[in-house]
Amino acid sequence: MSTDRLRVALFGSGRIGQVHARNIAAHPGLDLAVIADPFLEGASRLADATGTTAVQSAEEAFSTPGLDAVVIGSPTNTHVQLIESAVGHGLAVLCEKPIDLDLPTVRACRERIAGSSVPIMLGFNRRFDPAFASVRQRLEAGEIGTLEQLTIISRDPAPAPVGYLTASGGIFRDMTIHDLDMARFFVPDIVEVSAHGSTLFSEEIRELGDYDTAVVTLRGARGELITITNSRHCAFGYDQRLEAFGSDGMLAAGNLTANPVRSYGASGTEQAGPYLPFFLERYQDAYRAELDAFATAIRTGTAPSPGFDDGMAALVLAEAATESAAAGKAVNVEGSW
Amino acid sequence: MSTDRLRVALFGSGRIGQVHARNIAAHPGLDLAVIADPFLEGASRLADATGTTAVQSAEEAFSTPGLDAVVIGSPTNTHVQLIESAVGHGLAVLCEKPIDLDLPTVRACRERIAGSSVPIMLGFNRRFDPAFASVRQRLEAGEIGTLEQLTIISRDPAPAPVGYLTASGGIFRDMTIHDLDMARFFVPDIVEVSAHGSTLFSEEIRELGDYDTAVVTLRGARGELITITNSRHCAFGYDQRLEAFGSDGMLAAGNLTANPVRSYGASGTEQAGPYLPFFLERYQDAYRAELDAFATAIRTGTAPSPGFDDGMAALVLAEAATESAAAGKAVNVEGSW
Amino acid sequence: MSTDRLRVALFGSGRIGQVHARNIAAHPGLDLAVIADPFLEGASRLADATGTTAVQSAEEAFSTPGLDAVVIGSPTNTHVQLIESAVGHGLAVLCEKPIDLDLPTVRACRERIAGSSVPIMLGFNRRFDPAFASVRQRLEAGEIGTLEQLTIISRDPAPAPVGYLTASGGIFRDMTIHDLDMARFFVPDIVEVSAHGSTLFSEEIRELGDYDTAVVTLRGARGELITITNSRHCAFGYDQRLEAFGSDGMLAAGNLTANPVRSYGASGTEQAGPYLPFFLERYQDAYRAELDAFATAIRTGTAPSPGFDDGMAALVLAEAATESAAAGKAVNVEGSW
Amino acid sequence: MSTDRLRVALFGSGRIGQVHARNIAAHPGLDLAVIADPFLEGASRLADATGTTAVQSAEEAFSTPGLDAVVIGSPTNTHVQLIESAVGHGLAVLCEKPIDLDLPTVRACRERIAGSSVPIMLGFNRRFDPAFASVRQRLEAGEIGTLEQLTIISRDPAPAPVGYLTASGGIFRDMTIHDLDMARFFVPDIVEVSAHGSTLFSEEIRELGDYDTAVVTLRGARGELITITNSRHCAFGYDQRLEAFGSDGMLAAGNLTANPVRSYGASGTEQAGPYLPFFLERYQDAYRAELDAFATAIRTGTAPSPGFDDGMAALVLAEAATESAAAGKAVNVEGSW
Repeated sequence: MSTDRLRVALFGSGRIGQVHARNIAAHPGLDLAVIADPFLEGASRLADATGTTAVQSAEEAFSTPGLDAVVIGSPTNTHVQLIESAVGHGLAVLCEKPIDLDLPTVRACRERIAGSSVPIMLGFNRRFDPAFASVRQRLEAGEIGTLEQLTIISRDPAPAPVGYLTASGGIFRDMTIHDLDMARFFVPDIVEVSAHGSTLFSEEIRELGDYDTAVVTLRGARGELITITNSRHCAFGYDQRLEAFGSDGMLAAGNLTANPVRSYGASGTEQAGPYLPFFLERYQDAYRAELDAFATAIRTGTAPSPGFDDGMAALVLAEAATESAAAGKAVNVEGSW
Repeated sequence: MSTDRLRVALFGSGRIGQVHARNIAAHPGLDLAVIADPFLEGASRLADATGTTAVQSAEEAFSTPGLDAVVIGSPTNTHVQLIESAVGHGLAVLCEKPIDLDLPTVRACRERIAGSSVPIMLGFNRRFDPAFASVRQRLEAGEIGTLEQLTIISRDPAPAPVGYLTASGGIFRDMTIHDLDMARFFVPDIVEVSAHGSTLFSEEIRELGDYDTAVVTLRGARGELITITNSRHCAFGYDQRLEAFGSDGMLAAGNLTANPVRSYGASGTEQAGPYLPFFLERYQDAYRAELDAFATAIRTGTAPSPGFDDGMAALVLAEAATESAAAGKAVNVEGSW
Repeated sequence: MSTDRLRVALFGSGRIGQVHARNIAAHPGLDLAVIADPFLEGASRLADATGTTAVQSAEEAFSTPGLDAVVIGSPTNTHVQLIESAVGHGLAVLCEKPIDLDLPTVRACRERIAGSSVPIMLGFNRRFDPAFASVRQRLEAGEIGTLEQLTIISRDPAPAPVGYLTASGGIFRDMTIHDLDMARFFVPDIVEVSAHGSTLFSEEIRELGDYDTAVVTLRGARGELITITNSRHCAFGYDQRLEAFGSDGMLAAGNLTANPVRSYGASGTEQAGPYLPFFLERYQDAYRAELDAFATAIRTGTAPSPGFDDGMAALVLAEAATESAAAGKAVNVEGSW
Repeated sequence: MSTDRLRVALFGSGRIGQVHARNIAAHPGLDLAVIADPFLEGASRLADATGTTAVQSAEEAFSTPGLDAVVIGSPTNTHVQLIESAVGHGLAVLCEKPIDLDLPTVRACRERIAGSSVPIMLGFNRRFDPAFASVRQRLEAGEIGTLEQLTIISRDPAPAPVGYLTASGGIFRDMTIHDLDMARFFVPDIVEVSAHGSTLFSEEIRELGDYDTAVVTLRGARGELITITNSRHCAFGYDQRLEAFGSDGMLAAGNLTANPVRSYGASGTEQAGPYLPFFLERYQDAYRAELDAFATAIRTGTAPSPGFDDGMAALVLAEAATESAAAGKAVNVEGSW
């Protein structure tokens, strides 16, 4: 490891790659050594904007001198191979979720990297959202007693393009997986999954055999009951809320607006502005904090969190949700990981 | 029917009977003709306070001259007989929920009164809460498009005494039933019930084989997904909220405080006061509006709503929830009423 | 005094008379014995609705047998004479504000009734608003330390008709007087008044030589600074707010909506409904509590608050504000009452 | 001017200098060329952290090659000389408020630089606060009709050290000046100033002959009434609010918390966290936006806003407030600039 800044290779120059590129470039302890993307034009543009160089292949990226870590923001089906290569090169990994859409593939990867001590972090960015992190920290500090119920509401502003949805693995693996990890952030030990899906507004999603609307109920090992409410659209923006209900009180994290202005008129009062439109805006601080946690884990030699197993656990829950919604019954997941 | 005020007999002088007695006495179109309760002392005290007379037996009450209607606020196991007697006397009925804890008993009652045109109203007071009623009316007016999801959170401040709980029929029949009716207020045609119960804090409730914490997911005929979150305790008071999420927006009904004062200090800002402590305070206006709707239905000869069948439907859903929670699978309720 | 209910004569059957009539009729400790109004038709209609009788003259009203008290809701220019007559008859008085628009007339009245022990209460209803009363009580209890600043915002939804405004005595005597009393509710000892008026939107008010917009700054004896912000119109309803800023924190009383529903849509989020439209709705509870305080003061033989001198003090401040706004300088009011 | 990044010299490495240093260093269009401070140790530390060099004297700074602009964050009594030097060197200026505590000195400076076309911007950072800027922009867009009243509440968390206060010029020149500029941001043409000061909690401030608490009322040329409420302490943090009341509605900018978490417990509900503690946190975005506006003004050759004359106008109002508070009368400021 270099004694100075950590040198990072970034895979992927798409929407999420751009977020990571800018954050790495701005981080005082990180150097963006290279950006790799088969779509070289995008990688080059991003490299120009962040003062680094672009390459087309993973091989070229891995051969960049003095690397310490990789950030994987490329398409899902490349994750496993890049993780394994990085581990092979002894490079710390921050990989976007999900590890893969196929659970056996994830398990196989896990076995292949089992002996390695390379730190691997999964990009469940919401754990680093200041609001959600604050709720958890205050819960841990005992402010609301023992957690009994967790209510997660998570709605996207609009469905992704049908091309994306086709390859997404379905709403539970693609969208709910974030909320399943959020559930595990508060209640790591989930024992049962019950899921319900509906298709209420999108003919395209119906044709894919997928749901545009979903509800999931999880049971924790101590009996905690967790509900996740999802929709693929939301007329008032990106709806990302959480309530932790404990024996002594409740902590609720609401949505964010661009500024604290309220308006008053003949048709109503105290109206807040629109919510921050989507994840790039809402989780801007979370992505920065996530990257910083990654850097700190590497520097201090502590295991990064969330880790590979958290990525696998969320996928196990997503699979169980998919199965439960189809079968109309609860799925026991004890010992599934 | 008297040409002037409607003369009402009240059954029961307990907590809910007292609410009805005061509201009937204060209603400009109603006369509180008599209060009946086997516990004559309570009835007499309440009769004194509301300027009427008390009797001990139902027979005496029914023989009060010039009656137009009855309000039944006596224990659950007396409801069916009192309904049938009132119908036999041709008296309009406002009966507290539930009709009975036993569904076959309710069905039998329904058959026996089937030929009658006597108006029967069920005391699902929350339909008359100004906030919930406003959400529904604005939804009906098209303000948020088509309803897709309904989120109901309903927590009592503290468990009822164990004696009450023992005879309550369990959390779904006793507590959730209000929320099940609220669900039907928005989505009358429910097709599937999935329920989960947990016992997290009350040893007494555990010993009864009951749950102190529950989550229910309902599916409407159009695919609407409804979640109900219940707890038998709540450190911050009576938690009664509802969110209607539609294709074009959302309407949310929050809790009520005694006044709009907010406090600011070193430990936090914008703190509202405690929520109204329990149903007597929170639903004070709802009970009045319910009674008024009952009076109006009698005067205008329209069928009161919610009616007997709504009472039965809520019980069907409560039974299905009980079954679902035990079996760990969704229960189909299509055609169950 | 009758041993049973207190018998009350009401003067005036206009808007405010109707509020008092209904509240007296509904109060368990009060009997509405008679309503007097030269406009007999209005009085009769109101008497019918509240189960009492109407008379045309004050003399007839005062000759009603067994009276204990009077409530004066007639036009301002009748107040002094009715107060003096009531005192002459030994009847307790609840009189709407202001005592009179002319300060010498008020002082003369005060001298004439000086020897009497008849309880006199002034109808500054806002002192009984649950929110404002709660702020003051929590302040008195020490929750925010020593009061340093008080911010009162008070805007009417729309100007009164020009006929009313012509006889109103100007914005400070007619509208601000309520806020001046509210200031004295928190800081009884005011030493200095500075006022500013503007005419921004009403040509009619400009022609009357009056202001439609005003700001008043008061200084308390301990140096407390109080600001009052007034407007004769408000696009979003009746704006009635107060903030008490103390050495250890702040208590703020916001506006009231009909229900706690919030709406969310493409154009904004968390929108509350319109505020309660005007004083009849906003101060409905306050009028009831005021009447109850009046009844309690009579029963217990304690001096009612606010009393005659509070009515006079508010008028002194209103006069000072009128003078200050005209002269462009602060007016010292120490020892003016 | 260099064709590439603008090269900036920064004067002052204290609290505000550090803000500017970091923002200049992070701005993609600016280069931090040099930091000057007689206290070289502080300047060197800051230069190290921001990748530039430190010098002790202004002369050294001005001789840095290729400068385009200066940012002046040094003590107030150095501002005029540095502005004039920068103008002499043809360098654009962003100067912290106030230009000087002495109005004749400011006027003399203005005359001396009168012929120059060098862009000068005054550091009234609050104009760039997203909330306040949004209120003004929505007002300008007609959302609330014509502005009639503006309510500014501005309280510091705690008094500055007595050494600072002694040289501050008093509350109106030091603290209120920000609010006076905010008033002018909405109503540039102020015609009258009335001010009231009080010393309620700080013996030190009393000994300085200064106020710890103040209220200022301003009148705009169209009759708009503006109130400013100040305190040198605030138990619940940095209180920075504004309400623009117009003929058709109101826009209100509230305070900011670190995150949108609300807590609920036995002692209260819906409690937000503490407000952002002071200006460095609250106006972090504003400082960035201010710097960006400065850079844009230079690049596009447009006059920066707020400019030198805005700085002078705010000082004129602060002087008038000082005079008004002492004299107990309104001070006319028409034609004072």
